[in-house]
Amino acid sequence: MISPNGNKNNLPPYQQPGSVGLVQPQTFTFAHQPDELVLESGARLGPVTLAYETYGQLNADRSNAVLILHALSGDAHVAGYHAPDDAKPGWWDEAVGPGKMFDTDRYCVICSNVIGGCRGSTGPASIDPATGKPYGLRFPVITIKDMVSAQRHLMDHLGIARLLAVAGGSMGGMQALQWAVDYPDRVAACIPIATCARSSAQTIALNEVGRQAIYADPHWKRGDYYGGPTPDAGLAVARMVGHITYMSDDSMREKFGRRLQSREQRGYDFETDFAVESYLRYRGNQFPRRFDANTYLYVTKAIDYFDLAEGRAALADAFAGVKARFLVFSFTSDWLYPSYQAQEIVRALLQKGVDVTYIDVESSYGHDSFLVEVELLTEIIGDFLARVHREEARRRQRVEWSERTVRE
Amino acid sequence: MISPNGNKNNLPPYQQPGSVGLVQPQTFTFAHQPDELVLESGARLGPVTLAYETYGQLNADRSNAVLILHALSGDAHVAGYHAPDDAKPGWWDEAVGPGKMFDTDRYCVICSNVIGGCRGSTGPASIDPATGKPYGLRFPVITIKDMVSAQRHLMDHLGIARLLAVAGGSMGGMQALQWAVDYPDRVAACIPIATCARSSAQTIALNEVGRQAIYADPHWKRGDYYGGPTPDAGLAVARMVGHITYMSDDSMREKFGRRLQSREQRGYDFETDFAVESYLRYRGNQFPRRFDANTYLYVTKAIDYFDLAEGRAALADAFAGVKARFLVFSFTSDWLYPSYQAQEIVRALLQKGVDVTYIDVESSYGHDSFLVEVELLTEIIGDFLARVHREEARRRQRVEWSERTVRE
Repeated sequence: MISPNGNKNNLPPYQQPGSVGLVQPQTFTFAHQPDELVLESGARLGPVTLAYETYGQLNADRSNAVLILHALSGDAHVAGYHAPDDAKPGWWDEAVGPGKMFDTDRYCVICSNVIGGCRGSTGPASIDPATGKPYGLRFPVITIKDMVSAQRHLMDHLGIARLLAVAGGSMGGMQALQWAVDYPDRVAACIPIATCARSSAQTIALNEVGRQAIYADPHWKRGDYYGGPTPDAGLAVARMVGHITYMSDDSMREKFGRRLQSREQRGYDFETDFAVESYLRYRGNQFPRRFDANTYLYVTKAIDYFDLAEGRAALADAFAGVKARFLVFSFTSDWLYPSYQAQEIVRALLQKGVDVTYIDVESSYGHDSFLVEVELLTEIIGDFLARVHREEARRRQRVEWSERTVRE
Repeated sequence: MISPNGNKNNLPPYQQPGSVGLVQPQTFTFAHQPDELVLESGARLGPVTLAYETYGQLNADRSNAVLILHALSGDAHVAGYHAPDDAKPGWWDEAVGPGKMFDTDRYCVICSNVIGGCRGSTGPASIDPATGKPYGLRFPVITIKDMVSAQRHLMDHLGIARLLAVAGGSMGGMQALQWAVDYPDRVAACIPIATCARSSAQTIALNEVGRQAIYADPHWKRGDYYGGPTPDAGLAVARMVGHITYMSDDSMREKFGRRLQSREQRGYDFETDFAVESYLRYRGNQFPRRFDANTYLYVTKAIDYFDLAEGRAALADAFAGVKARFLVFSFTSDWLYPSYQAQEIVRALLQKGVDVTYIDVESSYGHDSFLVEVELLTEIIGDFLARVHREEARRRQRVEWSERTVRE
């Protein structure tokens, strides 16, 4: 029997097999003094709150934790439901759950929001303790390195000295790379997906257009719009630019083509004619309901600043001290983070003798492929994590033996 | 000796060899009654003025006219200078002049603005005779077919029964194709460059984002902004999106990379950090000085509606009656009008037995390649036009002979 919600049993979505079910949003506050956390820019921030969620059980020796990092518009709610009547699960529900890509029967999956964010973490909409008002543009500019440094505090709080893996797509992949570079002893494996080691001029340009659309909105008021009307129109335009870059020419043609929205003929007016226009307008207009325009500015700026080669003679030097094993994915139709950018990472890792597996996935879904190609990623990431888990167990055994030998 | 303007002689730019020199903007008004020109939508328009320019001399038998069609933001001023102190020549000065791609020693080159435009032709900023006020959004939606139909009136006015060639890049290429399809007896050769036979979902999406940026500008006022502040911020954002699509990932990396604009270090703020941001802001902010936001809406909509396959069983059927010889160009790094779109045109032409030469130019400059790859285009277009010119002379001779035979 097929129930009204399309499932083959009568269970609601959050009770379906494979779902992590109902999950609890959590927060962790650290750096309690106003100037406790020193950022890459030299600016100081505090107190700092991070929103996060966990799925699955941390094992006795705390060796099965996998940290998932999210992209520009993501949040800590990667899987499951917050309430039984939630219409949608987390943003990568296909990837996290019992038997899934990140198997919650085996691993304790953690997803952390970023500082600068607007989904429960300290960001430009938070209250500035110095003024008692929202930060707005007085919030300090943050970087990918700062995001990761804040997450390191969260891992300390959770008692996780070493992560089995860090994984993420797009900006999440930048954080994964930064984790492996900055905390080499705390990361056993790194899975950067559809990402780069340094943002290209084209990425910076696309981000700048989104920011300009927000600046141009009269409701933006140089960031001091909290409590009044918000710059939704500008943020919607920024989001539309984003959605175009997440798809590919091919996937847009397959999904929309020149299909007309609601008429048999062209409208010969400026109402929505084509299905693709309707899609963009809908996605653009929905976005401001869950996202803060100032966070869009801060997070895109963090992406622009991302450059692992900065201050180093060559990109490879960034990976000189890296100890993690790498699994790198790119997608053939991704024009936002084209395959050559993943290959740049792979070459740099190989130069430093790092163990790396690279897969350039043939897919037509553009940048969105990393959310779509679930079957292939489930198989490859599943096998990879199982192998790293076994290796880690042997590594711990060797450490125990050598410690015992020293004691005996 | 090198003069301060960088030339090897002391002559000002408009007197340099190869320049068409000082040129005169011209206009032609037709369809003098308010409802004289029937548009593709069924709406009526009049009076209609077209701005145009001519370069070189029309020969005695009026057989050497070449019509150049412009792209979205172009105008009739393709080459030369309007005044001795003009800082810049026309938009494709490298291509039009003595000894150039379109050799004004041999051909009479005409460039016509489009209806819906804002550079001297009837468009949304023109006075609506029905109200005595600017049309704004009361201007009828126009199509590429309408643009070409208006240009056909201009050719009648100039006494040109048959064009040696129609040529254009991007939206200019759409007009060139439409000319060959709609007026098969009036076009000897067609040169569509970096264009398509039907706009893709991605093109429509990118145009829609530009329009949304204009709609979101409070100065837009549903198009009734004439006499007051203009929606410059929205139009600037639209233009920035455009500029990104005109370049390629490669050309942006070569031109800007991650070069910082004016500091040795990151600014850690929202001022301009990167050279690419500065470039986009400059180009975006310059654009409203010479372009009308409503025209941007109308012309992008005409591009979206462009579909030679519409109302036909197959694209090839559009070319069933075509008599012109074709020379089609695409550029390997053009992601706005990728090579496969040119190849779609070529295949459809071949299906109908049309004579076509196709060149997919290896170039890293993206869509802008058609303005950059001057040397190659000069050689190929030069040879092609010379050949068509010879064939046309033989054709006319055959017609004369047969007419004489009939008379004798």
